[in-house]
Amino acid sequence: MKAKIVVMPKQAVLDPQGKAIQNALTQMGYHGIGAVRVGKYLEIELTNSDPEAARQQIDAACHKILSNPVIEDYRFEIE
Amino acid sequence: MKAKIVVMPKQAVLDPQGKAIQNALTQMGYHGIGAVRVGKYLEIELTNSDPEAARQQIDAACHKILSNPVIEDYRFEIE
Repeated sequence: MKAKIVVMPKQAVLDPQGKAIQNALTQMGYHGIGAVRVGKYLEIELTNSDPEAARQQIDAACHKILSNPVIEDYRFEIE
Repeated sequence: MKAKIVVMPKQAVLDPQGKAIQNALTQMGYHGIGAVRVGKYLEIELTNSDPEAARQQIDAACHKILSNPVIEDYRFEIE
């Protein structure tokens, strides 16, 4: 199984990296570019065969290690 | 519309950040953790209303600016 995790800055948190990319794209001639937000994407191979146990494990890992819950949200799927 | 872009290191490229996360998870008592790969995730708001034009624009931007084609692959969807 594989866990696919997306960690994004919360909507209320400023994202200067995204703002920089937005400005860069606009200055390079790309039109119609609105807000840009940048986060992390993780793919974790799981050797565990129980989907429910894997889900709980990944949820705990996201909350404790892989994201900062003060400023980031995460979502994930197990495949 | 919104473009959702994932930029990942190519399979043949070492990913030390992923390896560090794999070691950290294992040392913190999570079992069954295999290979970990870490990439970037971008969400770009598009004010353009033509999906096909947006697709071409995002593809060009990914290739030229948002990823390094030597060591990274990208994929995206327009919603």
